[in-house]
Amino acid sequence: MAAEALDQLIRLLAKLPGLGPRSARRAALFLLRHREGLMVQLAGALRAAAAEVHPCSLCGNLDGADPCRICTDPRRTSDQILVVEDVDDLWAMERGGLFRGRYHVLGGTLSALAGIGPEDLGIERLLGRIERDGVAEVVLATGVTVDGQTTAHYVAERIARLAERDHPVRVTRLAHGLPVGGELNYLDEGTLDAAFRARQPLA
Amino acid sequence: MAAEALDQLIRLLAKLPGLGPRSARRAALFLLRHREGLMVQLAGALRAAAAEVHPCSLCGNLDGADPCRICTDPRRTSDQILVVEDVDDLWAMERGGLFRGRYHVLGGTLSALAGIGPEDLGIERLLGRIERDGVAEVVLATGVTVDGQTTAHYVAERIARLAERDHPVRVTRLAHGLPVGGELNYLDEGTLDAAFRARQPLA
Repeated sequence: MAAEALDQLIRLLAKLPGLGPRSARRAALFLLRHREGLMVQLAGALRAAAAEVHPCSLCGNLDGADPCRICTDPRRTSDQILVVEDVDDLWAMERGGLFRGRYHVLGGTLSALAGIGPEDLGIERLLGRIERDGVAEVVLATGVTVDGQTTAHYVAERIARLAERDHPVRVTRLAHGLPVGGELNYLDEGTLDAAFRARQPLA
Repeated sequence: MAAEALDQLIRLLAKLPGLGPRSARRAALFLLRHREGLMVQLAGALRAAAAEVHPCSLCGNLDGADPCRICTDPRRTSDQILVVEDVDDLWAMERGGLFRGRYHVLGGTLSALAGIGPEDLGIERLLGRIERDGVAEVVLATGVTVDGQTTAHYVAERIARLAERDHPVRVTRLAHGLPVGGELNYLDEGTLDAAFRARQPLA
């Protein structure tokens, strides 16, 4: 019906997360209506990012430099490593701007179902960094899901074994509880349970 | 935080309909994880489609050929023209595969709010085709919205004026009523009202 070039574009756009066949068609039409302002620029940006952006060999962050700018920033402390599942989790923490240490991107979670084991997650690389850099604290910031928490426990255990024969490492995790703006009647029982157990004295 | 190339990619992806800043970040990460299989291919497809795909100078359909393959298909009749708002409406009709005439893509609807007048919609081009090709029937298939129906009435009136001094042209519109699979209790009053008024004898 349409040109082959258009069919191919729609087929590829539909593979992006968040776009189905229908929204891929809409996006393709939108692009053709904005040829110079968007379509050609996007083609260039895809090529440039594919060529220039790579995972940092230390932490797994995506950057044009390797090691990445976070790993080489002299204003950040190497004492603390915050462990996240993916690069977008790192970005979310950076938008907050309160963490001033280094990161470690696992690249996923342990998952029996998906067949993802410790060797797929760069956990050895994390242990290597802890030993080499004399890290004092590892903050586990994996998701509050079964896989996320299983992964956090596994990483904590591996670090504890490391610490036994070496230097002590403090292992913490982000607090679980009510999200800011959270209304109790909209929250699930798991969150309410976690928030109740971790209740704190009002100063 | 991330590389400039990555920031630029996310900024451009976020301009696509259906993608916000958050899903643009997700799409960018997904692309970087599928560099060869998707990212580089998508860059190529964007360039190819931007260069090859253009609106048909007769009907407004998007195709690699001009006139488009629908306008030049000898198995389709030139007696009937079906008028749609946009190319994706044409695609929707073609997926059904029951219409075997030609199309005319208006490129939008009349809209006082958006400042879109008859001169912006290629209506003169439609009238020219009707005169030149001796079209017998024009099927109006604009959306069942205020703007869509206003546009349909305007086009019908222009065709009627043309037909007065020239050959007669039958002007029809797609039926309004219950959608297939529609349950009455989920449908709006406007649809129910239209379906009731247009009720038909059970054979």
